Amino acid sequence: MNDRGPGSESDRENPADGGDDATADWPVDLAGVTESVVATLGPNGLWNLAALGLHAPERDGRDPDAPVRARTWGRTRTWRNFTERGGGVVQFVADPRDFVDAAATVREAERPVLGSADAWAEVTVERVDDGERGGTEWVDWHLRVADAAVERTAVRTINRGFGAVIDATVAVSRLDVPAYDTEELLARLAYFADVVERCGGPAEREAFDRLREVSGWDDRGR
Amino acid sequence: MNDRGPGSESDRENPADGGDDATADWPVDLAGVTESVVATLGPNGLWNLAALGLHAPERDGRDPDAPVRARTWGRTRTWRNFTERGGGVVQFVADPRDFVDAAATVREAERPVLGSADAWAEVTVERVDDGERGGTEWVDWHLRVADAAVERTAVRTINRGFGAVIDATVAVSRLDVPAYDTEELLARLAYFADVVERCGGPAEREAFDRLREVSGWDDRGR
Repeated sequence: MNDRGPGSESDRENPADGGDDATADWPVDLAGVTESVVATLGPNGLWNLAALGLHAPERDGRDPDAPVRARTWGRTRTWRNFTERGGGVVQFVADPRDFVDAAATVREAERPVLGSADAWAEVTVERVDDGERGGTEWVDWHLRVADAAVERTAVRTINRGFGAVIDATVAVSRLDVPAYDTEELLARLAYFADVVERCGGPAEREAFDRLREVSGWDDRGR
Repeated sequence: MNDRGPGSESDRENPADGGDDATADWPVDLAGVTESVVATLGPNGLWNLAALGLHAPERDGRDPDAPVRARTWGRTRTWRNFTERGGGVVQFVADPRDFVDAAATVREAERPVLGSADAWAEVTVERVDDGERGGTEWVDWHLRVADAAVERTAVRTINRGFGAVIDATVAVSRLDVPAYDTEELLARLAYFADVVERCGGPAEREAFDRLREVSGWDDRGR
């Protein structure tokens, strides 16, 4: 596990900010907002793993060759490490437990690429905009690919429980944000819990239990 | 398009019920309920395409080697063709427009396998149970694979708009079922519309528009 990818190049001190010219292509077709896991190198020498939505340029009617855009909210580890390191490693995971760990917990690793990632892209980032909404500062970044690889491919299958886990991470992250209606979020989470229970496989059920545990939210009494 | 797969074997009159012994494996790992598109041959000689949820045996704590199970609701074309032909062709699609067409419209084709399918499995079906819920009769079927192939694989990516389209097809199918709360379904559909608008790519937005169109439901005035 984790002995592959940019982090395995032990002769490079910090692969994420090592490239001067970003010329590689994304290892996947991006359309709309693609949910990824981004690894950024922290001051403790460990890679922090967090969720990051990648906005394809077509979203905004921009030039299709324009850079992919991502937004960080608040003074998160990703924001700090992007600021200090100028890049990171974006990866595409298919296991809902990896996504929940990245989105809802502080997960750190010695290597940037998870063993379960289907593909990864080492990116350099450029701060291009910032603002404030609902009391939280956001920063927009352009991401350019310096290096990338596909580790594996698979038949793409549809599991409603998987989608429910992903959406639940978003709902949970809004539970303490005043701009969102808590009752509405809890009703939505109860729906997601039902979908996971009825349609999820073992990985989805475990991911959802973990999300419930780390978030402190609990719908089981409802 | 559609010139591949079981339907392309022109020397076989009806591939879906042609196999006596079902011995092949599923072309994908199934866990929980996997949403598929099933093609069944109708009396008009055309293949009807419909959505079908495949229940892996682990769902019910059954023997992992037990057959995959699927439920048909009411006297649908899939129910009729399963009954009359004893089988069909299950396929795994990654384009949300194909899923919406199968789930929410009457789509018929000369060939059973869509050109966009990542994989397919020719199955024989056995009626194993039936019952009634909310005034609708259901039938449970065991599915056994007679032949299967992987047509392509890809890096698996996560798009919340994709998940919203899939879940919306379920909500739309319940709009006229008395057992479901219409207001709750409409609120959920409004949420899915918002997710598709913010996170979907062109395929998700087109699929959602098509679902809105064929279902007669419209949230845009809300």
